[in-house]
Amino acid sequence: MALTLVLGGARSGKSGFAQAQAEAQAGAQGGRLAMIVTGQAFDDEMRARIAQHRRDRGAAWRTVEAPLDLPQALGCLHEDDVVVVDCLTLWLSNLMLAERDCVPETESLLAALEGMKNPVWLVSNEVGLGIVPENALARRFRDEAGRLHRMLAAQADRVVLMVAGLPLMVK
Amino acid sequence: MALTLVLGGARSGKSGFAQAQAEAQAGAQGGRLAMIVTGQAFDDEMRARIAQHRRDRGAAWRTVEAPLDLPQALGCLHEDDVVVVDCLTLWLSNLMLAERDCVPETESLLAALEGMKNPVWLVSNEVGLGIVPENALARRFRDEAGRLHRMLAAQADRVVLMVAGLPLMVK
Amino acid sequence: MALTLVLGGARSGKSGFAQAQAEAQAGAQGGRLAMIVTGQAFDDEMRARIAQHRRDRGAAWRTVEAPLDLPQALGCLHEDDVVVVDCLTLWLSNLMLAERDCVPETESLLAALEGMKNPVWLVSNEVGLGIVPENALARRFRDEAGRLHRMLAAQADRVVLMVAGLPLMVK
Repeated sequence: MALTLVLGGARSGKSGFAQAQAEAQAGAQGGRLAMIVTGQAFDDEMRARIAQHRRDRGAAWRTVEAPLDLPQALGCLHEDDVVVVDCLTLWLSNLMLAERDCVPETESLLAALEGMKNPVWLVSNEVGLGIVPENALARRFRDEAGRLHRMLAAQADRVVLMVAGLPLMVK
Repeated sequence: MALTLVLGGARSGKSGFAQAQAEAQAGAQGGRLAMIVTGQAFDDEMRARIAQHRRDRGAAWRTVEAPLDLPQALGCLHEDDVVVVDCLTLWLSNLMLAERDCVPETESLLAALEGMKNPVWLVSNEVGLGIVPENALARRFRDEAGRLHRMLAAQADRVVLMVAGLPLMVK
Repeated sequence: MALTLVLGGARSGKSGFAQAQAEAQAGAQGGRLAMIVTGQAFDDEMRARIAQHRRDRGAAWRTVEAPLDLPQALGCLHEDDVVVVDCLTLWLSNLMLAERDCVPETESLLAALEGMKNPVWLVSNEVGLGIVPENALARRFRDEAGRLHRMLAAQADRVVLMVAGLPLMVK
């Protein structure tokens, strides 16, 4: 089934778009809705964002938390699940904080996605279109994010760039 | 009449595009040209930018300054004015500096725009496609800008993303 | 022959796209491949990036280093060269570090490009879509980059924005 990569900037409507598309798909095909969240609440700002997202989704969604083991979480879904992963940049950030090597983790993710029959919507932040960050870790992060997006986009059936809540089709 | 949101990065040609489109429209329809500027000259860098913009526009334009009361300024235009608002991110920044609540202000703006018969070109900076800022105020600002753009784009007839001076049609 | 501007964020696949297109062109037309690099290795991070790029390109490419004198380097090519310039934002950054005036340098670049019969692929980083940088030099840099991109895009036959390794046609 189709793999879609939904890229976009902060508050560009990525999550809302992916969720609405997944809900329409699950409705049309009689499937269930699974949300894999990668966020970790380290502080109050993050906790408030995560709680707000959960309230916004409503009860139709089953939530799976996978801050690090995303490929494994994708392997444990029901066969009629329509899946949203929100989001890949947080997953990458969690991997880097945990000092895991991003290269084999990304390969595991690509392999897990390749084997899936479920419709999957991957949400990720485009972070590479500003000034080069002064912080070396931030530079490494945006390099890793760029590489991850390129590999996922090559494998995806569709790639969408969200601009002000509107989808711009890239693939 | 048509509402157009012109988004883009720094020096991407947003203002020039909106002004040229408005001039063509006013020429074709026999209308007048009104520029609502939201910039405030707090320092020499800003003062120089504002003065340069004013010189670039020329005498055909009437300039209205509205650093905070943008909805009210939109309500005071002539009915044959073709309007450019430049720019919304500065307006948002002024609201935040003045510690005004952005939610009711945005609602007032949307309501003012909905009631207008004039062609309106809204210019705004896309600021959400870089690394998450370390500064909490900058994070809040880009969240507010993202929300504002989504709401305006939903109401707009057209949304354009400027890339290197060229318009990419998003809606 | 065609002038193409390839814009994109960090790790968006700009260089790879420009090189692949140039290789296809040189193959079809029996031309040679010339890479003009503008990078200067001031530290280990940069040195590693430059060396990696050179290894990735392979032996088919002739490399010309032009950290500052890019217009002159363009004037010294063979008439059957298919040319990639990688990248313009580094050139701009080098000019600023050397305290050269960007305006006449940009004019020289535009004039050199206008006179060329070779196919040219210009690679440059889009850096203007994040939060306004706190650093004044970074603000000046992104202003200069925006102006340079606008002028080049006006003269170019094609402008491409790379998103996750995929080309989005802007012109």
